[in-house]
Amino acid sequence: MPVTINCDMGESFGLWRMGDDAGLMPLIHIANVACGFHASDFDHMRATVRLAKTHGVKVGAHPSLPDLQGFGRREMKIGREELANCIIYQVGALCGFLKAEGMELNHIKPHGSLYGMAARNEEIAQAVCDAADVFKVPLLGMTGTLHEKVYPSRGHGFVAEFYADLEYRPDGSLIVTREHDAKDPDLMAARCVRAITEGKGTATDGSDIPVRCDSICIHSDTPNAIDIARAVRAAVQPYT
Amino acid sequence: MPVTINCDMGESFGLWRMGDDAGLMPLIHIANVACGFHASDFDHMRATVRLAKTHGVKVGAHPSLPDLQGFGRREMKIGREELANCIIYQVGALCGFLKAEGMELNHIKPHGSLYGMAARNEEIAQAVCDAADVFKVPLLGMTGTLHEKVYPSRGHGFVAEFYADLEYRPDGSLIVTREHDAKDPDLMAARCVRAITEGKGTATDGSDIPVRCDSICIHSDTPNAIDIARAVRAAVQPYT
Amino acid sequence: MPVTINCDMGESFGLWRMGDDAGLMPLIHIANVACGFHASDFDHMRATVRLAKTHGVKVGAHPSLPDLQGFGRREMKIGREELANCIIYQVGALCGFLKAEGMELNHIKPHGSLYGMAARNEEIAQAVCDAADVFKVPLLGMTGTLHEKVYPSRGHGFVAEFYADLEYRPDGSLIVTREHDAKDPDLMAARCVRAITEGKGTATDGSDIPVRCDSICIHSDTPNAIDIARAVRAAVQPYT
Amino acid sequence: MPVTINCDMGESFGLWRMGDDAGLMPLIHIANVACGFHASDFDHMRATVRLAKTHGVKVGAHPSLPDLQGFGRREMKIGREELANCIIYQVGALCGFLKAEGMELNHIKPHGSLYGMAARNEEIAQAVCDAADVFKVPLLGMTGTLHEKVYPSRGHGFVAEFYADLEYRPDGSLIVTREHDAKDPDLMAARCVRAITEGKGTATDGSDIPVRCDSICIHSDTPNAIDIARAVRAAVQPYT
Repeated sequence: MPVTINCDMGESFGLWRMGDDAGLMPLIHIANVACGFHASDFDHMRATVRLAKTHGVKVGAHPSLPDLQGFGRREMKIGREELANCIIYQVGALCGFLKAEGMELNHIKPHGSLYGMAARNEEIAQAVCDAADVFKVPLLGMTGTLHEKVYPSRGHGFVAEFYADLEYRPDGSLIVTREHDAKDPDLMAARCVRAITEGKGTATDGSDIPVRCDSICIHSDTPNAIDIARAVRAAVQPYT
Repeated sequence: MPVTINCDMGESFGLWRMGDDAGLMPLIHIANVACGFHASDFDHMRATVRLAKTHGVKVGAHPSLPDLQGFGRREMKIGREELANCIIYQVGALCGFLKAEGMELNHIKPHGSLYGMAARNEEIAQAVCDAADVFKVPLLGMTGTLHEKVYPSRGHGFVAEFYADLEYRPDGSLIVTREHDAKDPDLMAARCVRAITEGKGTATDGSDIPVRCDSICIHSDTPNAIDIARAVRAAVQPYT
Repeated sequence: MPVTINCDMGESFGLWRMGDDAGLMPLIHIANVACGFHASDFDHMRATVRLAKTHGVKVGAHPSLPDLQGFGRREMKIGREELANCIIYQVGALCGFLKAEGMELNHIKPHGSLYGMAARNEEIAQAVCDAADVFKVPLLGMTGTLHEKVYPSRGHGFVAEFYADLEYRPDGSLIVTREHDAKDPDLMAARCVRAITEGKGTATDGSDIPVRCDSICIHSDTPNAIDIARAVRAAVQPYT
Repeated sequence: MPVTINCDMGESFGLWRMGDDAGLMPLIHIANVACGFHASDFDHMRATVRLAKTHGVKVGAHPSLPDLQGFGRREMKIGREELANCIIYQVGALCGFLKAEGMELNHIKPHGSLYGMAARNEEIAQAVCDAADVFKVPLLGMTGTLHEKVYPSRGHGFVAEFYADLEYRPDGSLIVTREHDAKDPDLMAARCVRAITEGKGTATDGSDIPVRCDSICIHSDTPNAIDIARAVRAAVQPYT
């Protein structure tokens, strides 16, 4: 199966801009589009879907906990049923814009703290599946977590992501920060190739960790996201 | 064409309750379900769609201007394109819950000030149609307004509503208040029958006004909504 | 020191109503007024402050985590500095209305999950104090928790509450539910008297727990809040 | 009376940044600080107040219609009493942060559409005064509008602003756009000097219009705001 590059996009809100979506879109294969709960609004969602269409990029939903001011990066206690409903609302809203542009929903990828919570908490992972049951699309997630265990057990396609712009702890867990730092593009590209070819990543202490890379994730709000995307795209071209 | 009874529903939000949806649902044919912008949230939308399904009630979207605190009853300046996007977002979100329950979207009916603005302002009425183009369902609206002129001119089905619990001005325009008052159920039922059989309504000054009644609207937040609904349902039974 | 009755009030939002504030206000001594983050808005805050003034009730702030849809009863991860700012914003806003009505801020009482988090988490309790440093008023809280330990250590007055309408676990901790149930008014009044005179409460398993009661709390969103307030007020009159 | 330079500031929200406040603060005399309804949040308000304090800049409130997604630049129908409450809430919240930093509120300047509505609509201008009655500080506004007529008639200080980065119509009214364009710094500085010394401005058609300039306004979200501020500051130095 060819490797894809995915990117969290459409994260502007109202007059506020975030990420160079126009610059990144030509460099990626699939876009995870914010649905208004951590970022974006009805105008930015429409614009992002259109931009993706122009570049032949497939669109997935990037639903979040309800937390615009915290950008969905604040964990909160939420029950399985209300979380499933929270996700269905957001994915449904995105599907409205996809329908408007004659496109299909490609996948779902939970955002920020929801992503992390689903990796560690069975109830949360099940809630994500409850929502995915409605839309019947694959889920993006991380190997070695409940994503990989729960999603396929519920019959959902699982696409394992490797993060090109985040650090991993020695135990293999991802360090999700509220704001992202710039990273060295060449180093990141080399790590992606190694993840694909060897199934290995480098933790913050320099140790090797097992990873799996069906898709490479780049965040649009990383300061030098475009440089990273270009370097990664060039390096992984043979595997896409 | 048989007359239906429609009702604005699902207008609770978080812990706050509004309207006796469980009491009203058995008395109506089609429900206009709030989509989170003037009322409701992901949990109440799910519950409302399920309740409608249980009673065999068809579900339409009841999108609003973005104004939860003002219950969508505050006019605001909004452009055609952003309004269309605003509506698509809400209708799409509702469609997520309909999909979850194996139901189809039946219609769209703009809420509150958006309804009134679309009645008087060509750009707003066109924006409603732009959104309806995506979902291809009929629109509920009021005779003698731009609803009746613009919606069909864009190829959309138009269902003319008669309001069982609001007053009409002598010029035929509807008086939309932020909170609704209780009304005399029998008087309201008699007005509905007259609207259906004679095409006439009674304005605040007692004068006759021309009306059209393909569907009768009852608001769930009118204090004695259930009494009104029962009386109306009984009275119009022969025409449904 | 005389015992007071305090009540969480002003918890309506927009068109949605919650609690019979007009009925409760004559029965209480101090009101904890919602500040727009879990309930209330600028209009309800003004109205609640005015109502309190009419009845000679002192007004404190009832700040919350930012979570209107979850009524502030959803725990979330939040840092000390942002939480302090979050509280200052809300208390400041309330002070605007107090200033408008010629009143002074009487106290601060964190709401819902924030109350519970401050009881168990040192950082959260410190953040509450950081905000209280600005306004220099006492804090309401619960005995046997970090409220009692941290607030006075930072030089803030501490008023120990006993809950007239919530249950306690055998370990003395309070059971905070998202919606409150009706309670037997006479039983609750008797428990209040015992809390005042003996310093003892009854846990869910029937066992005695140590409590402290400088002030009795009644929630306005408890279904029979007024009956409870009347019974409690009559029973504790000698101690107020 | 010396002329001041004022600037709309603190317009970031959550992770989204807007305006180079750190760059502008040393160049201005008074800051109009967003209060969370069109921009900013509790964290950015605290940071903005602290930044102003560092530079000896006086802080006023910049309250808005409740419209974060539209940046307060969408007119809406709102009654006098609810608008007064809306403003009191925001100004009160800002005063919380001023109190935290040992500062005093300097003035109030309505934001965006609220500013424009108060210029043309008597009820709106009166509502602004109702709120200003509470805080007893001067109001910033525009000459030749209801600002100048209503505010002083209610006993409030009126500070006439001249806009360094917006265009004026031939009838003297200001063109308020949702996003601001870059302007030629030298041209803008020359216009400011002429406004101060001659009481004249230049309309979009090149004609002269009467203006009054007690204070010069620069928007922090104008793309080249710092260049404009530097040029203006240098040019008007003799009059400050």
